[in-house]
Amino acid sequence: MPGGLAALPSTIITRPSVLGPMEHRLEADVTLSAPLPAPVDAGELVPRLAAEAFARTIANRGEGKLASFTVDGPKLLLVLESNGPRPHQTLLAFVRRLGEELGRSAKVGVRSFEASRYRSEFTLDSAPEGPITLPIPHHLTIEGTLAALSLLHLSEEGLRDNWMDRAVALVQEKVRRQSYTGKEQFWSLLSASPAREVRFEHDPTEEMLKRQWVRSGPTKGKWFLGPTAAHLLRTMERIALEEVLRPLGFQEVVQPHHDSFETLLKTGHLEGLPGEFYYVAEPKTRDPAAWERFTDLVKITRQVPTEELARMVTGPTAVACYAQCPTTYWWLSGRTLGTDSLPLRIFDRAAVSNRYESGGRHGLERVDEFHRIEPVFLGAPDDLVALRQALLDRYTHVFNEVLELEWRTAWVTPFYLQQSGKVGVEDVHARVKGTIDFEAYLPYRGPRESSEWLEFQNLSIVGDKYTKAFSIKAQKGELWSGCTGIGLERWVTAFLAQKGLEVADWPDGFRRYAGELPTDVRFL
Amino acid sequence: MPGGLAALPSTIITRPSVLGPMEHRLEADVTLSAPLPAPVDAGELVPRLAAEAFARTIANRGEGKLASFTVDGPKLLLVLESNGPRPHQTLLAFVRRLGEELGRSAKVGVRSFEASRYRSEFTLDSAPEGPITLPIPHHLTIEGTLAALSLLHLSEEGLRDNWMDRAVALVQEKVRRQSYTGKEQFWSLLSASPAREVRFEHDPTEEMLKRQWVRSGPTKGKWFLGPTAAHLLRTMERIALEEVLRPLGFQEVVQPHHDSFETLLKTGHLEGLPGEFYYVAEPKTRDPAAWERFTDLVKITRQVPTEELARMVTGPTAVACYAQCPTTYWWLSGRTLGTDSLPLRIFDRAAVSNRYESGGRHGLERVDEFHRIEPVFLGAPDDLVALRQALLDRYTHVFNEVLELEWRTAWVTPFYLQQSGKVGVEDVHARVKGTIDFEAYLPYRGPRESSEWLEFQNLSIVGDKYTKAFSIKAQKGELWSGCTGIGLERWVTAFLAQKGLEVADWPDGFRRYAGELPTDVRFL
Repeated sequence: MPGGLAALPSTIITRPSVLGPMEHRLEADVTLSAPLPAPVDAGELVPRLAAEAFARTIANRGEGKLASFTVDGPKLLLVLESNGPRPHQTLLAFVRRLGEELGRSAKVGVRSFEASRYRSEFTLDSAPEGPITLPIPHHLTIEGTLAALSLLHLSEEGLRDNWMDRAVALVQEKVRRQSYTGKEQFWSLLSASPAREVRFEHDPTEEMLKRQWVRSGPTKGKWFLGPTAAHLLRTMERIALEEVLRPLGFQEVVQPHHDSFETLLKTGHLEGLPGEFYYVAEPKTRDPAAWERFTDLVKITRQVPTEELARMVTGPTAVACYAQCPTTYWWLSGRTLGTDSLPLRIFDRAAVSNRYESGGRHGLERVDEFHRIEPVFLGAPDDLVALRQALLDRYTHVFNEVLELEWRTAWVTPFYLQQSGKVGVEDVHARVKGTIDFEAYLPYRGPRESSEWLEFQNLSIVGDKYTKAFSIKAQKGELWSGCTGIGLERWVTAFLAQKGLEVADWPDGFRRYAGELPTDVRFL
Repeated sequence: MPGGLAALPSTIITRPSVLGPMEHRLEADVTLSAPLPAPVDAGELVPRLAAEAFARTIANRGEGKLASFTVDGPKLLLVLESNGPRPHQTLLAFVRRLGEELGRSAKVGVRSFEASRYRSEFTLDSAPEGPITLPIPHHLTIEGTLAALSLLHLSEEGLRDNWMDRAVALVQEKVRRQSYTGKEQFWSLLSASPAREVRFEHDPTEEMLKRQWVRSGPTKGKWFLGPTAAHLLRTMERIALEEVLRPLGFQEVVQPHHDSFETLLKTGHLEGLPGEFYYVAEPKTRDPAAWERFTDLVKITRQVPTEELARMVTGPTAVACYAQCPTTYWWLSGRTLGTDSLPLRIFDRAAVSNRYESGGRHGLERVDEFHRIEPVFLGAPDDLVALRQALLDRYTHVFNEVLELEWRTAWVTPFYLQQSGKVGVEDVHARVKGTIDFEAYLPYRGPRESSEWLEFQNLSIVGDKYTKAFSIKAQKGELWSGCTGIGLERWVTAFLAQKGLEVADWPDGFRRYAGELPTDVRFL
């Protein structure tokens, strides 16, 4: 896990050490606009303001103390300790009051402050199995499951922004991940359709290529669907709309297909999947005169002048849609939803999904670009559980009676989440929040018992994770959300892999929806 | 026009000079793998091969001559002149034969060659009105309308790739543009609907914002359409499909929404509009370990670590769909279309169009992201003219009887194209190849006589420009192409700007298509 990193700003120490008596110790440097004038009694002022700040920020949640302080010209060095909450909020309260008092009594202000060293002890779930890295200046000492993290030269911004709390959480997460590396995600069968007679055993993409229904696109992992393949994709879309979404009252929205970084910071996608995004960059200017050198080079060389282009374009400013739900939550951000609009049921099918798949690409099954209907729903927990059941019922009807697939569902949880206490797999609550995967058997991959099935669909209730992150509220009561991604290329692949490409072999329910196939283009 | 350019590799000279007797003069340096051994008679060999090369490349299209040559160790310096075609093809033919003969007779090869100086004379349409720049090493001399361009140190690649021809064309184009700067495009009214009673005089986007039908998106110039606005957009889509495209036999395809640079080089978009593209960049790797520093920084700071991101992402590798037709042509590239597939009528509505609009943005009328159906048609010239008329008839029906718009059509040609001889505005041929713009009156912009109308649609026949560029052939006869972009946001804007947002005020034809409007989300 730690391989591949560039030089880190701090060495990692994992030798035992003697840990101090208090859990948290903040060594602060406060720079004033001028040395304290004579009338100010620092010996009275600093302890008084520190006691006040501890009372305000720690109160009865632990013990805090001013361990020492020194005045050195315009510098005030102080050490705050706590065995309750971490004392950076205490420092912020202290500095604010210090500025007020000195401004009033001595016309001296606080120019800046930082933590030269901020040390915090905490307990890990288990001893780490390898080194732990952090991207900011620090020392980390771990003895068994007891960790002590010191952040060095932590800026005012880092103090205000709780970097210590986040760094501690990150160390805990990294240790947890180490202990689950290589372990499987939790997978528990929920339901299975009857086995169906195997009528086709080929890779459907290979067959579509032979018939020139599809052409592998001009950029990585993207496909051009000719009339017949496009007709199949749109037929699946129509089935999803008419058999699942419209009967359940879902309404369409049309969302931008660029996701802002701010949105993806809130959903957590940016920290989770940065290597799977396609990024979007903008021209630095639209002025043709500024682009003249670029256009002249293109006109003369008929090649892309890469360096000139890099000079004219910004760094990444956004991400091409990875999934639609983040921007749907953005749309509702800061809003309060009227009771009569709940449960809110909406879907988008306008944004095209992009995923940088790299080595994993295969045919139309695993692609860098795909078309997905993404229904999102928000409401009271009980209403969402009922809606999930209604969705399950409609999906079951589609897969059993329209597409006649061999398919199954499973309850899935990533392993490290199961063990982190975030999701208890066996309790009832866990079966409320979480994800159901839908998988289809692909005969060309081998026997149904031993081959990997294709995940072609999922259905999740995520609790209040996103409604909280985007400050979306209900007029009354708790507001949860969930979503269910309908991957149209995967529906097509699952169907063709089981039924083949001959209309005569397709089930009646699907043929009714498909109608007459287009006469595809005849290439000589 | 020339402002804003970084340092150019050559000074521009626009003083008179004495032009030489021959139009084109190529001073070449050929480097051999070894000095010529004694038995080789350069005095016989070089003139003989040059004469042979002139005969092959210039023949009776002009006069070519070997003006001089020198042998200096492994260097052969020669000067080729021509008053017919430019002599770089002659040099290539000479070098190829030289390699063959020397390889056979003396085991000596040609290691490399370049033009130390390649001078070409040509005539301009008019004298330039300002300096002319080029992005490769050169001297340019212009006396009245007579120009002499010398390219310096032109590489083998530049010689093989006709850079001189392209540089000359570029100089001519720049002079032409200078003389038309600030002039209007050609605009000639073709048809106009009757005036309609003005029922609404507001900016429809402002009205939609007030009703919370739309929200200005999280990134530049993009919109989130809530249920009602999405319903209007999809209704327009349905009208276009059912009233125009399906009756005329158009079939849907689904194309990638990333356009490759190679495709845009072929269509000319890359040289025409580089400041209007959104660019796509890829992760340098998908490996989570390599992204650990990035994800750790996000987790601790909750901000985008811009420098680390720039380190992990490639430069631009493609362009987000600007228009759909380039990739449609890519799909057909290198193919021969069967007669029974012609005229080929296809459309895409999957790729979302992106345009970096910068200062020009306004509401839903001029946006950075929009949804367009792009029909493309290929066939014999006569068939395309007939198809264009059929499209015009169907559009007329839609705009007069379904949407009941006040609209007009105009024949448009950019001014510099009119004068360049590429399109003769007044001849019949020009009225075959070219573009018809559809414009709608927007009452909120002011009186119909003096305000700017909204271009909401166009229809073009482009001749064989793209079929040639992509090597698309018909089984029999000439193959032309054309396209007609249906901008759904613009249809919505034109309609709402004239009819307002009250269902009761809408024409029956549209109401039949729209059906019942969604109950939009109620925000408190």
